[in-house]
Amino acid sequence: MMGKLFMVAPDSFKESMTAKEVCEAMEIGIRRAIPDASFIHVPMADGGEGTVQSLVDATGGVLIQKEVTGPLGVTVQAHYGILGDGKTAVIEMASASGIHHVTKETKNPLITTTLGTGELIKACIENGITDIILGIGGSATNDAGTGMAKALGYKFLDKQGNELQLGGGFLGELDKIETSNIIPQLKEINIIIASDVTNPLCGEHGASVVFGPQKGATPEMVELLDANLRHFSQIVEQQLGIEVANVPGAGGAGGLGAGLIAFTNSRMKRGVEIVIEYTELEAKMKNVDYCFTGEGGIDFQTKFGKTPYGVAQVAKSVNEQIKVIALAGHIGRDVESLYEHGFDAIFGIVPGAADLETLLVNGKENVARTAESVARLLA
Amino acid sequence: MMGKLFMVAPDSFKESMTAKEVCEAMEIGIRRAIPDASFIHVPMADGGEGTVQSLVDATGGVLIQKEVTGPLGVTVQAHYGILGDGKTAVIEMASASGIHHVTKETKNPLITTTLGTGELIKACIENGITDIILGIGGSATNDAGTGMAKALGYKFLDKQGNELQLGGGFLGELDKIETSNIIPQLKEINIIIASDVTNPLCGEHGASVVFGPQKGATPEMVELLDANLRHFSQIVEQQLGIEVANVPGAGGAGGLGAGLIAFTNSRMKRGVEIVIEYTELEAKMKNVDYCFTGEGGIDFQTKFGKTPYGVAQVAKSVNEQIKVIALAGHIGRDVESLYEHGFDAIFGIVPGAADLETLLVNGKENVARTAESVARLLA
Repeated sequence: MMGKLFMVAPDSFKESMTAKEVCEAMEIGIRRAIPDASFIHVPMADGGEGTVQSLVDATGGVLIQKEVTGPLGVTVQAHYGILGDGKTAVIEMASASGIHHVTKETKNPLITTTLGTGELIKACIENGITDIILGIGGSATNDAGTGMAKALGYKFLDKQGNELQLGGGFLGELDKIETSNIIPQLKEINIIIASDVTNPLCGEHGASVVFGPQKGATPEMVELLDANLRHFSQIVEQQLGIEVANVPGAGGAGGLGAGLIAFTNSRMKRGVEIVIEYTELEAKMKNVDYCFTGEGGIDFQTKFGKTPYGVAQVAKSVNEQIKVIALAGHIGRDVESLYEHGFDAIFGIVPGAADLETLLVNGKENVARTAESVARLLA
Repeated sequence: MMGKLFMVAPDSFKESMTAKEVCEAMEIGIRRAIPDASFIHVPMADGGEGTVQSLVDATGGVLIQKEVTGPLGVTVQAHYGILGDGKTAVIEMASASGIHHVTKETKNPLITTTLGTGELIKACIENGITDIILGIGGSATNDAGTGMAKALGYKFLDKQGNELQLGGGFLGELDKIETSNIIPQLKEINIIIASDVTNPLCGEHGASVVFGPQKGATPEMVELLDANLRHFSQIVEQQLGIEVANVPGAGGAGGLGAGLIAFTNSRMKRGVEIVIEYTELEAKMKNVDYCFTGEGGIDFQTKFGKTPYGVAQVAKSVNEQIKVIALAGHIGRDVESLYEHGFDAIFGIVPGAADLETLLVNGKENVARTAESVARLLA
């Protein structure tokens, strides 16, 4: 097995290892079995949590910490990444405006705001960034991205010409969108929204009905929020000439999808496709003999756009002979169905009966041990 | 991969699956990946728990239930097997005289007896058996096999000519071994003791010191039991002319090893070697391409004579090209060290964080899933 080339392209194992750490553990294990193997490391992600870290790691970029306004108006520590090309930033909206910044007691989608996400975008612009990848999962908000827009210079006024309070609960009073103070560079910025959500802004499949309850909305609040988003979309259409209500994905992140479409140069793309593009996974896959991927959990849903699925698709499209092996901390229901979707083998890494906490701590060793065993079968 | 031949030769997965059930689960999984594969099933064991079941299953024998005297004198339900040859029986002493028949409160190696094990041997003799494989692990006793011998007609008398009470605590009073009423057929019977234990009968590595405490012996009881076994060995040497005190393995099962040597035609052999012999594993291994083995738990100690080690040794001795893959419910410490001992790959079957109870219930499905993934790499 002289000179065999291994691609290691896993997602992170949430709460256990970054994707980069999984890559390292995979190489350690494989190398034990095949000492002269060569490796390409591509830490992956799917647009959700860990995407900033993986894209920074995969491109040799940098991670930047920044204090911003959290979803409840209190300052929080957020971060974003600048990729190795120096001109592309990657932001996870949840870092500034995510559900983890609120508690069971304080979560309230009437008042939570995407202002901090806008502040991150503004910081990128001020740093000379021209392209932003924006992951919009895990939000605590239902404000149609109006907080985000406010940070970029938009003003949302009521009939009296006063600025609205922050939060989706007040959008029913929206009368005028004032655009005269928008940051001038905004129109030069391209935003790629990483989203796997296809929900519209309003209605029974809309942001408020589907995602409101998990953000703390009571049935009455859901009704109000949904009506407010509909009103918002009408104002946007009247005053900006942009139809957002029925765009698939407009309902992502409490309507941040709609706000990005209305207020910025944005287009939506599946998260894993963006990561595949920016990591240049396809080009790197040339000449690869074996491709190891993985994620904290794998099940039949993996084929609906999760990272290992994306990696398997690229591998097989480049060369059907590339064997794709997935490792996971948790093997869920009907993984066998993945064998029709580019996977050659799927292995759990768990060594025995154990609680989750122990497994999270021992992730690297378990990945390495399993990768070694697989590699021994390939050798 | 037309016509590849798979040997499936696992031990049982304790409290989850018999070895036969593991064989079936392995075939199910492998067949999903390689529908035209052929299979040889050899349910294995190592002389410990499950050996009767596996040898009965492997040879097409029968399992026989029998009520016998338990270690505390109370009747218990025991069983033994008759192999497919119709002339060899297999007994686990624990079935009649095992530690699972006593509780934390009732365990007391001063009084526990191997009488029931002798009753099983007697039943075999009455059924026309000529060869007995006797696994001696898991005993509750410390009586040097005197209970067993009593069932076969030996009498153990004190100075007054009265029969001793049952149990190792009374052996200090032994004055005479009366042999006139021994079952006549006993001398025609060959017993193979399945034992991986090399402890002598007495002293710091002897039965009482090493194994007494786990059977409920206090330090004072250990001292008494050890002295009694020494006295017993002296009487045996004087009256029967057999030296048992220092025979390796004489200390197995509370000195049942010594008793078998003293009172029957016995020889000791490693459990897994006996099973390999009686299952004709070596002959069946000819023409095999892949050999799957496994056990509930695998770790570095597996190479000290556990079933998967024995299977791997046979496979590699028959043909170094046979790939040996082991599956286990629990992957313990330093399994990598097994790669120098005939194993090609070792995989855990556990799908994620889970308690033992759940894993025990889902064993078959987890074996099948893992075997499938392995087979897909081989295909």
